Amino acid sequence: MAGPCLVIFFALLLLSSIAEASQCSVKGLPLIRNISELPQDNYGRGGLSHITIAGSVMHGMKEVELWLQTFAPGSATPIHRHSCEEVFVVLKGSGTLYLATNSHEKHPGKPQEFKIYSNSTFHIPVNDAHQVWNTNEHEDLQILVVISRPPVKVFIYEDWFMPHTAAKLKFPYYWDEQCFQVPQKDEL
Amino acid sequence: MAGPCLVIFFALLLLSSIAEASQCSVKGLPLIRNISELPQDNYGRGGLSHITIAGSVMHGMKEVELWLQTFAPGSATPIHRHSCEEVFVVLKGSGTLYLATNSHEKHPGKPQEFKIYSNSTFHIPVNDAHQVWNTNEHEDLQILVVISRPPVKVFIYEDWFMPHTAAKLKFPYYWDEQCFQVPQKDEL
Repeated sequence: MAGPCLVIFFALLLLSSIAEASQCSVKGLPLIRNISELPQDNYGRGGLSHITIAGSVMHGMKEVELWLQTFAPGSATPIHRHSCEEVFVVLKGSGTLYLATNSHEKHPGKPQEFKIYSNSTFHIPVNDAHQVWNTNEHEDLQILVVISRPPVKVFIYEDWFMPHTAAKLKFPYYWDEQCFQVPQKDEL
Repeated sequence: MAGPCLVIFFALLLLSSIAEASQCSVKGLPLIRNISELPQDNYGRGGLSHITIAGSVMHGMKEVELWLQTFAPGSATPIHRHSCEEVFVVLKGSGTLYLATNSHEKHPGKPQEFKIYSNSTFHIPVNDAHQVWNTNEHEDLQILVVISRPPVKVFIYEDWFMPHTAAKLKFPYYWDEQCFQVPQKDEL
Protein backbone atom coordinates (compact mmCIF):
# COMPACT_ATOMS: atom_id res chain seq x y z
CA MET A 1 0.00 0.00 0.00
CA ALA A 2 3.04 2.30 0.30
CA GLY A 3 3.34 2.70 -3.48
CA PRO A 4 0.27 4.87 -4.24
CA CYS A 5 0.85 6.95 -1.09
CA LEU A 6 4.40 7.71 -2.13
CA VAL A 7 3.22 8.73 -5.61
CA ILE A 8 0.61 11.08 -4.10
CA PHE A 9 3.21 12.47 -1.66
CA PHE A 10 5.68 13.29 -4.44
CA ALA A 11 2.91 14.72 -6.64
CA LEU A 12 1.91 17.07 -3.80
CA LEU A 13 5.56 17.99 -3.22
CA LEU A 14 5.93 18.80 -6.92
CA LEU A 15 2.72 20.89 -6.95
CA SER A 16 3.78 22.90 -3.89
CA SER A 17 7.19 23.63 -5.39
CA ILE A 18 5.53 24.76 -8.64
CA ALA A 19 3.19 27.02 -6.63
CA GLU A 20 6.14 28.54 -4.77
CA ALA A 21 8.14 29.00 -7.95
CA SER A 22 5.24 30.69 -9.73
CA GLN A 23 4.76 33.09 -6.79
CA CYS A 24 8.40 34.09 -7.31
CA SER A 25 8.23 34.40 -11.08
CA VAL A 26 6.99 37.30 -13.15
CA LYS A 27 6.15 34.83 -15.92
CA GLY A 28 2.46 34.18 -16.29
CA LEU A 29 1.43 37.25 -14.29
CA PRO A 30 -1.17 39.33 -16.13
CA LEU A 31 -0.10 42.86 -17.10
CA ILE A 32 -3.08 44.36 -15.23
CA ARG A 33 -3.20 42.98 -11.70
CA ASN A 34 -5.90 43.32 -9.06
CA ILE A 35 -4.15 44.62 -5.93
CA SER A 36 -6.63 42.82 -3.67
CA GLU A 37 -5.53 39.50 -5.23
CA LEU A 38 -1.79 40.05 -4.71
CA PRO A 39 0.06 38.06 -2.01
CA GLN A 40 -0.43 39.67 1.40
CA ASP A 41 1.42 38.68 4.58
CA ASN A 42 2.70 40.01 7.90
CA TYR A 43 6.11 38.39 7.27
CA GLY A 44 6.44 37.57 10.95
CA ARG A 45 5.80 41.14 12.11
CA GLY A 46 2.80 41.60 14.41
CA GLY A 47 0.19 44.10 13.27
CA LEU A 48 1.56 44.42 9.74
CA SER A 49 -0.07 43.67 6.41
CA HIS A 50 2.34 44.06 3.48
CA ILE A 51 1.64 43.82 -0.25
CA THR A 52 4.34 44.42 -2.86
CA ILE A 53 2.34 46.17 -5.60
CA ALA A 54 5.30 46.26 -7.99
CA GLY A 55 8.69 45.04 -6.94
CA SER A 56 12.17 44.02 -7.90
CA VAL A 57 12.14 40.44 -6.65
CA MET A 58 8.50 39.74 -7.56
CA HIS A 59 7.97 41.72 -10.78
CA GLY A 60 11.40 42.48 -12.20
CA MET A 61 11.39 46.22 -11.43
CA LYS A 62 14.89 47.70 -11.54
CA GLU A 63 14.47 51.32 -10.40
CA VAL A 64 11.30 51.70 -8.33
CA GLU A 65 9.26 49.55 -5.98
CA LEU A 66 5.81 50.14 -4.55
CA TRP A 67 4.25 48.73 -1.36
CA LEU A 68 0.81 48.86 0.25
CA GLN A 69 1.11 48.48 4.00
CA THR A 70 -1.40 48.47 6.84
CA PHE A 71 -0.34 48.89 10.46
CA ALA A 72 -2.77 47.87 13.21
CA PRO A 73 -3.08 50.30 16.14
CA GLY A 74 0.16 50.28 18.16
CA SER A 75 2.30 48.61 15.48
CA ALA A 76 5.29 50.23 13.81
CA THR A 77 8.23 49.82 11.48
CA PRO A 78 11.60 49.15 13.09
CA ILE A 79 13.87 52.16 13.64
CA HIS A 80 15.86 51.97 10.42
CA ARG A 81 17.70 53.73 7.62
CA HIS A 82 18.47 53.07 3.96
CA SER A 83 20.38 54.83 1.22
CA CYS A 84 17.48 54.91 -1.24
CA GLU A 85 14.79 57.53 -1.65
CA GLU A 86 11.42 56.82 -0.04
CA VAL A 87 8.06 58.55 -0.46
CA PHE A 88 4.97 57.86 1.66
CA VAL A 89 1.32 58.56 0.93
CA VAL A 90 -1.07 58.03 3.84
CA LEU A 91 -4.27 56.48 2.48
CA LYS A 92 -6.15 55.87 5.73
CA GLY A 93 -5.74 56.54 9.44
CA SER A 94 -3.10 58.56 11.21
CA GLY A 95 0.09 58.09 13.17
CA THR A 96 3.51 59.47 13.94
CA LEU A 97 6.72 59.73 11.94
CA TYR A 98 9.86 59.72 14.06
CA LEU A 99 12.80 61.13 12.14
CA ALA A 100 16.40 61.64 13.25
CA THR A 101 18.09 64.15 11.01
CA ASN A 102 21.44 64.13 12.77
CA SER A 103 22.94 61.46 10.54
CA HIS A 104 26.36 63.06 10.91
CA GLU A 105 26.45 62.09 14.60
CA LYS A 106 27.57 58.64 15.75
CA HIS A 107 23.98 57.59 16.43
CA PRO A 108 20.54 58.76 15.28
CA GLY A 109 19.73 60.51 18.58
CA LYS A 110 16.37 61.73 19.82
CA PRO A 111 14.07 61.91 16.78
CA GLN A 112 11.72 64.70 15.81
CA GLU A 113 8.03 63.75 15.86
CA PHE A 114 5.64 64.56 13.01
CA LYS A 115 1.93 63.86 12.91
CA ILE A 116 0.93 62.04 9.74
CA TYR A 117 -2.69 61.86 8.58
CA SER A 118 -4.95 60.63 5.79
CA ASN A 119 -4.08 62.21 2.42
CA SER A 120 -0.71 63.47 3.64
CA THR A 121 2.63 62.78 1.95
CA PHE A 122 6.26 62.98 3.00
CA HIS A 123 9.63 61.69 1.94
CA ILE A 124 12.56 60.53 4.03
CA PRO A 125 15.94 62.18 3.47
CA VAL A 126 18.36 59.51 2.23
CA ASN A 127 20.09 57.68 5.12
CA ASP A 128 18.15 59.44 7.91
CA ALA A 129 16.99 56.97 10.58
CA HIS A 130 13.21 56.88 10.89
CA GLN A 131 10.22 54.97 12.18
CA VAL A 132 6.54 55.07 11.23
CA TRP A 133 4.17 54.23 14.08
CA ASN A 134 0.40 53.82 14.16
CA THR A 135 -0.15 55.85 17.32
CA ASN A 136 -3.91 56.02 16.70
CA GLU A 137 -5.56 53.54 19.07
CA HIS A 138 -8.76 53.29 17.09
CA GLU A 139 -7.88 52.90 13.43
CA ASP A 140 -5.55 51.07 11.05
CA LEU A 141 -2.86 53.15 9.35
CA GLN A 142 -2.70 52.37 5.62
CA ILE A 143 0.21 53.74 3.61
CA LEU A 144 1.54 53.51 0.12
CA VAL A 145 5.34 53.44 0.03
CA VAL A 146 7.61 54.12 -2.95
CA ILE A 147 11.33 53.35 -2.82
CA SER A 148 14.12 53.71 -5.35
CA ARG A 149 16.96 51.23 -5.99
CA PRO A 150 15.13 48.02 -5.08
CA PRO A 151 15.42 45.52 -3.50
CA VAL A 152 15.68 47.58 -0.31
CA LYS A 153 18.73 47.21 1.92
CA VAL A 154 17.78 48.17 5.47
CA PHE A 155 19.92 48.91 8.54
CA ILE A 156 17.93 48.32 11.73
CA TYR A 157 18.52 50.01 15.11
CA GLU A 158 17.38 48.63 18.46
CA ASP A 159 17.03 52.17 19.81
CA TRP A 160 17.77 55.77 18.79
CA PHE A 161 21.10 55.85 20.61
CA MET A 162 22.57 52.70 19.04
CA PRO A 163 25.70 53.67 17.07
CA HIS A 164 25.28 53.72 13.28
CA THR A 165 28.11 51.18 13.10
CA ALA A 166 26.11 48.72 15.25
CA ALA A 167 22.92 48.93 13.15
CA LYS A 168 22.18 45.51 11.69
CA LEU A 169 21.81 45.00 7.92
CA LYS A 170 18.61 43.11 7.05
CA PHE A 171 18.99 41.98 3.46
CA PRO A 172 17.03 40.62 1.76
CA TYR A 173 14.25 42.42 3.68
CA TYR A 174 11.29 40.55 5.20
CA TRP A 175 9.10 40.39 2.08
CA ASP A 176 11.98 39.75 -0.31
CA GLU A 177 13.40 36.74 1.56
CA GLN A 178 11.31 33.99 -0.01
CA CYS A 179 11.95 34.91 -3.64
CA PHE A 180 15.28 36.74 -3.51
CA GLN A 181 18.01 35.22 -5.66
CA VAL A 182 21.62 36.32 -5.64
CA PRO A 183 22.17 38.02 -9.03
CA GLN A 184 24.20 35.93 -11.42
CA LYS A 185 27.49 37.54 -12.38
CA ASP A 186 28.40 37.65 -16.02
CA GLU A 187 31.21 35.28 -16.80
CA LEU A 188 33.89 37.44 -18.31
CA MET B 1 -2.90 110.04 -9.40
CA ALA B 2 -0.51 107.84 -11.37
CA GLY B 3 2.00 107.64 -8.48
CA PRO B 4 0.03 105.48 -5.97
CA CYS B 5 -1.28 103.26 -8.79
CA LEU B 6 2.26 102.58 -9.98
CA VAL B 7 3.39 101.74 -6.44
CA ILE B 8 0.48 99.31 -6.06
CA PHE B 9 1.21 97.83 -9.50
CA PHE B 10 4.86 97.16 -8.68
CA ALA B 11 3.98 95.85 -5.23
CA LEU B 12 1.58 93.33 -6.84
CA LEU B 13 4.23 92.41 -9.43
CA LEU B 14 6.73 91.77 -6.64
CA LEU B 15 4.23 89.69 -4.65
CA SER B 16 3.35 87.57 -7.68
CA SER B 17 7.03 86.90 -8.46
CA ILE B 18 7.62 85.91 -4.82
CA ALA B 19 4.62 83.58 -4.97
CA GLU B 20 5.95 82.00 -8.17
CA ALA B 21 9.45 81.62 -6.76
CA SER B 22 8.17 79.97 -3.59
CA GLN B 23 6.05 77.55 -5.63
CA CYS B 24 9.27 76.44 -7.32
CA SER B 25 11.34 76.14 -4.18
CA VAL B 26 11.49 73.23 -1.77
CA LYS B 27 12.55 75.71 0.94
CA GLY B 28 9.83 76.47 3.44
CA LEU B 29 7.73 73.44 2.47
CA PRO B 30 6.68 71.44 5.53
CA LEU B 31 7.97 67.85 5.72
CA ILE B 32 4.40 66.50 6.01
CA ARG B 33 2.26 67.94 3.23
CA ASN B 34 -1.49 67.74 2.72
CA ILE B 35 -1.98 66.42 -0.84
CA SER B 36 -5.24 68.34 -1.22
CA GLU B 37 -3.31 71.59 -0.65
CA LEU B 38 -0.62 70.90 -3.28
CA PRO B 39 -0.67 72.85 -6.58
CA GLN B 40 -3.15 71.30 -9.02
CA ASP B 41 -3.51 72.27 -12.69
CA ASN B 42 -4.48 70.92 -16.10
CA TYR B 43 -1.30 72.38 -17.64
CA GLY B 44 -3.19 73.24 -20.81
CA ARG B 45 -4.54 69.73 -21.32
CA GLY B 46 -8.33 69.41 -21.38
CA GLY B 47 -9.87 67.01 -18.87
CA LEU B 48 -6.67 66.58 -16.85
CA SER B 49 -5.98 67.36 -13.22
CA HIS B 50 -2.33 66.83 -12.28
CA ILE B 51 -0.66 67.05 -8.85
CA THR B 52 3.03 66.31 -8.35
CA ILE B 53 2.98 64.60 -4.93
CA ALA B 54 6.77 64.37 -4.75
CA GLY B 55 8.92 65.48 -7.64
CA SER B 56 12.34 66.34 -8.92
CA VAL B 57 11.70 69.92 -9.96
CA MET B 58 9.34 70.74 -7.07
CA HIS B 59 10.75 68.76 -4.15
CA GLY B 60 14.31 67.84 -5.03
CA MET B 61 13.70 64.11 -5.60
CA LYS B 62 16.53 62.49 -7.56
CA GLU B 63 15.38 58.92 -8.18
CA VAL B 64 11.58 58.68 -7.98
CA GLU B 65 8.63 60.95 -8.68
CA LEU B 66 4.98 60.52 -7.77
CA TRP B 67 1.89 62.04 -9.44
CA LEU B 68 -1.83 62.06 -8.69
CA GLN B 69 -3.80 62.48 -11.90
CA THR B 70 -7.50 62.63 -12.70
CA PHE B 71 -8.81 62.21 -16.24
CA ALA B 72 -12.35 63.36 -17.02
CA PRO B 73 -14.45 60.98 -19.18
CA GLY B 74 -13.05 60.91 -22.72
CA SER B 75 -9.66 62.45 -21.84
CA ALA B 76 -6.33 60.68 -22.26
CA THR B 77 -2.56 60.95 -22.12
CA PRO B 78 -0.78 61.50 -25.44
CA ILE B 79 0.61 58.40 -27.18
CA HIS B 80 4.12 58.47 -25.75
CA ARG B 81 7.19 56.60 -24.58
CA HIS B 82 10.01 57.19 -22.10
CA SER B 83 13.10 55.32 -21.01
CA CYS B 84 12.21 55.33 -17.30
CA GLU B 85 10.19 52.81 -15.34
CA GLU B 86 6.55 53.68 -14.65
CA VAL B 87 4.02 52.08 -12.29
CA PHE B 88 0.30 52.91 -12.18
CA VAL B 89 -2.23 52.36 -9.42
CA VAL B 90 -5.85 53.02 -10.35
CA LEU B 91 -7.54 54.68 -7.37
CA LYS B 92 -10.96 55.40 -8.89
CA GLY B 93 -12.86 54.79 -12.11
CA SER B 94 -11.86 52.67 -15.08
CA GLY B 95 -10.46 53.03 -18.55
CA THR B 96 -8.20 51.52 -21.18
CA LEU B 97 -4.45 51.11 -21.46
CA TYR B 98 -3.19 51.02 -25.04
CA LEU B 99 0.28 49.47 -25.22
CA ALA B 100 2.49 48.84 -28.25
CA THR B 101 5.07 46.23 -27.40
CA ASN B 102 6.72 46.14 -30.82
CA SER B 103 9.35 48.70 -29.95
CA HIS B 104 11.83 46.97 -32.25
CA GLU B 105 9.74 48.00 -35.29
CA LYS B 106 10.09 51.41 -36.94
CA HIS B 107 6.86 52.63 -35.37
CA PRO B 108 4.74 51.57 -32.36
CA GLY B 109 2.05 49.90 -34.53
CA LYS B 110 -1.44 48.84 -33.51
CA PRO B 111 -1.49 48.70 -29.70
CA GLN B 112 -2.93 46.00 -27.47
CA GLU B 113 -5.88 47.09 -25.34
CA PHE B 114 -6.15 46.35 -21.64
CA LYS B 115 -9.05 47.18 -19.34
CA ILE B 116 -7.90 49.00 -16.22
CA TYR B 117 -10.11 49.33 -13.16
CA SER B 118 -10.23 50.60 -9.59
CA ASN B 119 -7.59 48.94 -7.37
CA SER B 120 -5.66 47.56 -10.34
CA THR B 121 -1.95 48.09 -10.96
CA PHE B 122 0.33 47.76 -13.96
CA HIS B 123 3.74 48.90 -15.12
CA ILE B 124 4.90 49.97 -18.54
CA PRO B 125 7.90 48.18 -20.08
CA VAL B 126 10.69 50.75 -20.56
CA ASN B 127 10.43 52.53 -23.94
CA ASP B 128 7.15 50.89 -25.01
CA ALA B 129 4.73 53.44 -26.50
CA HIS B 130 1.50 53.69 -24.50
CA GLN B 131 -1.58 55.73 -23.78
CA VAL B 132 -4.00 55.76 -20.85
CA TRP B 133 -7.54 56.74 -21.75
CA ASN B 134 -10.61 57.30 -19.59
CA THR B 135 -12.99 55.34 -21.79
CA ASN B 136 -15.66 55.31 -19.07
CA GLU B 137 -18.29 57.89 -20.01
CA HIS B 138 -19.70 58.24 -16.53
CA GLU B 139 -16.81 58.55 -14.11
CA ASP B 140 -13.45 60.26 -13.58
CA LEU B 141 -10.36 58.03 -13.79
CA GLN B 142 -7.98 58.75 -10.90
CA ILE B 143 -4.50 57.25 -10.99
CA LEU B 144 -1.36 57.37 -8.96
CA VAL B 145 1.76 57.29 -11.14
CA VAL B 146 5.33 56.48 -10.08
CA ILE B 147 8.28 57.10 -12.39
CA SER B 148 12.00 56.62 -12.02
CA ARG B 149 14.77 58.95 -13.20
CA PRO B 150 12.88 62.26 -12.90
CA PRO B 151 12.28 64.77 -14.37
CA VAL B 152 10.52 62.74 -17.07
CA LYS B 153 11.67 63.01 -20.70
CA VAL B 154 8.76 62.13 -22.97
CA PHE B 155 8.64 61.35 -26.71
CA ILE B 156 5.16 62.06 -28.09
CA TYR B 157 3.56 60.40 -31.14
CA GLU B 158 0.69 61.87 -33.18
CA ASP B 159 -0.52 58.37 -34.03
CA TRP B 160 0.52 54.72 -33.58
CA PHE B 161 2.13 54.54 -37.02
CA MET B 162 4.37 57.61 -36.68
CA PRO B 163 8.02 56.48 -36.94
CA HIS B 164 9.94 56.39 -33.65
CA THR B 165 12.41 58.81 -35.21
CA ALA B 166 9.63 61.39 -35.78
CA ALA B 167 8.30 61.29 -32.20
CA LYS B 168 8.72 64.69 -30.62
CA LEU B 169 10.67 65.17 -27.39
CA LYS B 170 8.70 67.17 -24.81
CA PHE B 171 11.19 68.25 -22.15
CA PRO B 172 10.65 69.66 -19.64
CA TYR B 173 7.22 67.99 -19.52
CA TYR B 174 4.00 69.99 -19.01
CA TRP B 175 4.09 70.19 -15.19
CA ASP B 176 7.85 70.69 -14.99
CA GLU B 177 8.00 73.66 -17.38
CA GLN B 178 7.34 76.48 -14.92
CA CYS B 179 9.96 75.50 -12.36
CA PHE B 180 12.51 73.55 -14.41
CA GLN B 181 16.02 74.94 -14.31
CA VAL B 182 18.90 73.67 -16.43
CA PRO B 183 21.27 71.93 -14.00
CA GLN B 184 24.37 73.95 -13.25
CA LYS B 185 27.55 72.23 -14.33
CA ASP B 186 30.38 72.04 -11.85
CA GLU B 187 33.19 74.36 -12.85
CA LEU B 188 36.20 72.11 -13.16
